[in-house]
Amino acid sequence: MVNASMKKRKSSSPRVRSEGPKQSRNRVRHGGRGASAPADWIYGLHAALAAINNPRRNLHRIAVTRHIAESHASALAKHEFDVVERRDLDDQLPEGAVHQGIAVHAGALPNVYIEDIIRMTESRESGALVVLDQATDPRNIGAVMRSAAAFGALAVVVHDHHAPSITPTLAKAASGAVETVPLVRVGNLARAMNLLKEADFWCLGLDGAADTVLSDTDWRGFSALVFGAEGTGLRRLTRETCDVLVRIPINGEIESLNLSNAVAVTLYEVTRSG
Amino acid sequence: MVNASMKKRKSSSPRVRSEGPKQSRNRVRHGGRGASAPADWIYGLHAALAAINNPRRNLHRIAVTRHIAESHASALAKHEFDVVERRDLDDQLPEGAVHQGIAVHAGALPNVYIEDIIRMTESRESGALVVLDQATDPRNIGAVMRSAAAFGALAVVVHDHHAPSITPTLAKAASGAVETVPLVRVGNLARAMNLLKEADFWCLGLDGAADTVLSDTDWRGFSALVFGAEGTGLRRLTRETCDVLVRIPINGEIESLNLSNAVAVTLYEVTRSG
Repeated sequence: MVNASMKKRKSSSPRVRSEGPKQSRNRVRHGGRGASAPADWIYGLHAALAAINNPRRNLHRIAVTRHIAESHASALAKHEFDVVERRDLDDQLPEGAVHQGIAVHAGALPNVYIEDIIRMTESRESGALVVLDQATDPRNIGAVMRSAAAFGALAVVVHDHHAPSITPTLAKAASGAVETVPLVRVGNLARAMNLLKEADFWCLGLDGAADTVLSDTDWRGFSALVFGAEGTGLRRLTRETCDVLVRIPINGEIESLNLSNAVAVTLYEVTRSG
Repeated sequence: MVNASMKKRKSSSPRVRSEGPKQSRNRVRHGGRGASAPADWIYGLHAALAAINNPRRNLHRIAVTRHIAESHASALAKHEFDVVERRDLDDQLPEGAVHQGIAVHAGALPNVYIEDIIRMTESRESGALVVLDQATDPRNIGAVMRSAAAFGALAVVVHDHHAPSITPTLAKAASGAVETVPLVRVGNLARAMNLLKEADFWCLGLDGAADTVLSDTDWRGFSALVFGAEGTGLRRLTRETCDVLVRIPINGEIESLNLSNAVAVTLYEVTRSG
């Protein structure tokens, strides 16, 4: 059992340095970034309806098939939308996009920084966030965000240079979760983890070779759950920055769970026992 | 808490009728079905190496790039293989297949029937299997098989008419798990569940509206975990055939976990507390 007393940092009042430009917080507080913000298409029923319902989104255009206009009339009632043919959406969106008859052209979400997440902890007694070391596949990150939303995680943190931004593919895989869970992009993952540790987050790295299993871990308070890439695992500096390494007790016959499954299982355990 | 005493069936010695043709068991015992069995390409590093290491596979051809031949020399040592160019694999395999420099042309795995799985329980005291009601996406089923392998599940059971067989896409998503976890195809899911119940499996249906949460469930003995399609859930007859309905405790903000994540979380809970 990881002892709860080990979790107390020297400083109990978190002192946080800014990770991004100063005006970032205003942008977050005030919602959308105006007409100049980069826009993209969000497609698929869950992803598109979640974007429509997100007041922080600047909606430029909503395009739906006749079928969706009728079957989801109440969800669309407060918005202007265009009724189009299915093939118009096929033509507009990337080849093979499973749009399910709805696409929304919307401004990007405002950036969220680590200190915004730390500020969220001031009104809570516990919570977990997910840190992805070297995740690059937008579908994987989207699936992780969906699990994060399902288990009420505070945020998903990724490396700015390795991970994609919220692309249409990521948003589709997240099935609406990008509207509720912040995707925090940081320039240096170890530095972000140190900021979290100063703010009394306990940093747990998932490592198949760890001695401690998930269920022997004290999940009270705030946890940052750090996941490496499938196959190669955590990078050395990331691993060394963790407070403790833990493993999911799985059968040796298969190398590992896929990333989003590992995240889902870990968040489940945090929720169950935290 | 679901009471363990409720789990006792009238008949403690399972009596099982055959689900498939009589000779099926011999086919399973004797391994491959000979040169006339349908063959297919298996690609991707984990999936292909697992197929090569599976003695029940009739291997027709192994094609690897020079890079794989050198980096995986010991895994390939006992086999004949062709060294090919990457573009030869691109041409041979479906467009966009992420083959990672290796593809194996192999006979299909022998069919496995429900009674083969029930026979496996005679030498064990506990175990879980996964039943998928209406899963159709080969990537979803492959991801479920990977989780099933990670947590040592006995089998994955699917409906013969709805679910694909072990296609190259499914095998790739399963990352080798199709070689270790039987994919059992049945003609009638409710009938298969009744066979399992006669053999003292406890049938638990996953349902977001259930009163009982996973961690308040008694997982001792044998469990059949029954999952519906994302969005629509369990079909009525499937739900009614379950002994009990349970739910994963998730946040209401997102509709559900994706299928493989729900399976991973449930198998984790069975393993943890069973």
